[in-house]
Amino acid sequence: MTSKDQHLLVVGSIAFDDLDMPSGAHRNVLGGSATYASLSASLLARDHVRIVGVVGDDFPAAIVAELAARGIDTLGVARSPGQTFRWHGRYSADLASRTTLDTRLNVFAEFSPKIHPSHCSSRFLFLGNIHPALQIDVVNQVPETTLIAADTMNFWIEREPAHLASMLRRIDLLVINDEEARQLAGIHNLVRAAADIRKRGPKALVIKRGEFGALLFDDSGTFFVPAYPLEDVLDPTGAGDSFAGGLMGYLAVRGTASPHALRSAMFFAATLGSFCVEGIGPSRLLEIGRGDLSSRLAAFGKLVDHGGSLSLPG
Amino acid sequence: MTSKDQHLLVVGSIAFDDLDMPSGAHRNVLGGSATYASLSASLLARDHVRIVGVVGDDFPAAIVAELAARGIDTLGVARSPGQTFRWHGRYSADLASRTTLDTRLNVFAEFSPKIHPSHCSSRFLFLGNIHPALQIDVVNQVPETTLIAADTMNFWIEREPAHLASMLRRIDLLVINDEEARQLAGIHNLVRAAADIRKRGPKALVIKRGEFGALLFDDSGTFFVPAYPLEDVLDPTGAGDSFAGGLMGYLAVRGTASPHALRSAMFFAATLGSFCVEGIGPSRLLEIGRGDLSSRLAAFGKLVDHGGSLSLPG
Repeated sequence: MTSKDQHLLVVGSIAFDDLDMPSGAHRNVLGGSATYASLSASLLARDHVRIVGVVGDDFPAAIVAELAARGIDTLGVARSPGQTFRWHGRYSADLASRTTLDTRLNVFAEFSPKIHPSHCSSRFLFLGNIHPALQIDVVNQVPETTLIAADTMNFWIEREPAHLASMLRRIDLLVINDEEARQLAGIHNLVRAAADIRKRGPKALVIKRGEFGALLFDDSGTFFVPAYPLEDVLDPTGAGDSFAGGLMGYLAVRGTASPHALRSAMFFAATLGSFCVEGIGPSRLLEIGRGDLSSRLAAFGKLVDHGGSLSLPG
Repeated sequence: MTSKDQHLLVVGSIAFDDLDMPSGAHRNVLGGSATYASLSASLLARDHVRIVGVVGDDFPAAIVAELAARGIDTLGVARSPGQTFRWHGRYSADLASRTTLDTRLNVFAEFSPKIHPSHCSSRFLFLGNIHPALQIDVVNQVPETTLIAADTMNFWIEREPAHLASMLRRIDLLVINDEEARQLAGIHNLVRAAADIRKRGPKALVIKRGEFGALLFDDSGTFFVPAYPLEDVLDPTGAGDSFAGGLMGYLAVRGTASPHALRSAMFFAATLGSFCVEGIGPSRLLEIGRGDLSSRLAAFGKLVDHGGSLSLPG
């Protein structure tokens, strides 16, 4: 199935996270939106994934080699003098909320992604949460795409509304969480917020709701995927990016962004998200294999299998 | 399909609610768990539903006649001297939480359901949220059942743990919300809480999560149904009872409580819940017909239709 036009280009942050979890403190955990999205995508689309980001000279070459060993093309990982982007966060006891204790952009402050010529033919593009002007800059460098998806966050919604509006006009799919959707639209009801956002550019919108699943809104209607009910949730960090990576990886390997493929992709997205939260940082993503993925997908299928017809009795 | 053994007996409160909604105040709104559950069930299982409850001498005969006109057997609606049960609540602006301003049990304080001999052969039993000792008393009067389902609430979990434990050993299906499940099990994680609760008696458990859908746990595994995404939510009052009524009404008319039927029933439950919240009190339940139900069921089917196989690509 591999062909030049089925590559997924993932652009975003590569980071070290310091995580204060209810279960204890974890330091120097590999993080960043591009990291989580690439790792997740590569589990579905090995050798289709290209990561673009910047690291400092403190970033171990062994980690880049580990990504490459997983079939991720790391040609786009730039190394700059200085420290790698670092985030320090603390989670509440029920993991439902978190507080940022410290953000150090470091080399990420000057990040201006230059897409390698051999990557400009990528047909699938995932723009992690970076400045919307940079997201547009990447779009300009990748001219022939099947699907351009982007994430954003409250920071850009509040501070860069003009750039954000321009970015929205350039993408096919926006992948954000429920609070971001409400804030972006200025509308509390998610169905109405989705309709409003889709008028601003992206024909498709995915609203992530964490443990409450995710909604897809597109021209074919509304589609819902639950979060897989788990017994052990250790760390939600990166779950949203893992979701997006799973979604995009599945579409890239399928080579299509049809409404039908998008609906299947939502389950692959939720599957990767469910694995992500089972370990600290990306540890679970780094240990699972095809058997684990197949088992969870089967369980997911059972979770939503209502047995066919839902016709009215009597 | 109607036969003696396919009747659903609904036992619970019949009330007047005073509702302080963001949209305004509503007084003397028909309410109560038995009311919502019966109305919902009757939309799927006309002439299969029997309601058992008590009203005061202030309760208009016209309302009882209205229930009867909808095919609900009102033989079990007792009338006692005094006032009908009354609840006064205020909802938050986003409708996500509510505060009880006043509860007047009135004639409901002495409610002790005596099941009419002609109702004792009912094969489906829904025990709304009443004292667990009364729930047991009803179970004792209905000896041959296909399915006994019950609701409960934090009040009984805190104050009547022994009676509640006895009740749980007598029922097949417990239908509660997520906070009640956590409180009952003393476990925050819902998957673990569900396993704990199912060891206490009910082989099946439904955990309702309001706008976030509902989970079914039984010997066949875990099943999820989303809440239907709505543009206009006016009043969540009675949504949980409407959900339960839809679930039980569907099973009664089908005449089975098989795992397969239960999974379909979850969609009928969510469908009735979704209509309930679209109006103040039970107003929407009172105006919809088969066409509305069919349309929403079709939309529901589309909402979760992932197109079949979820096999791993590549």
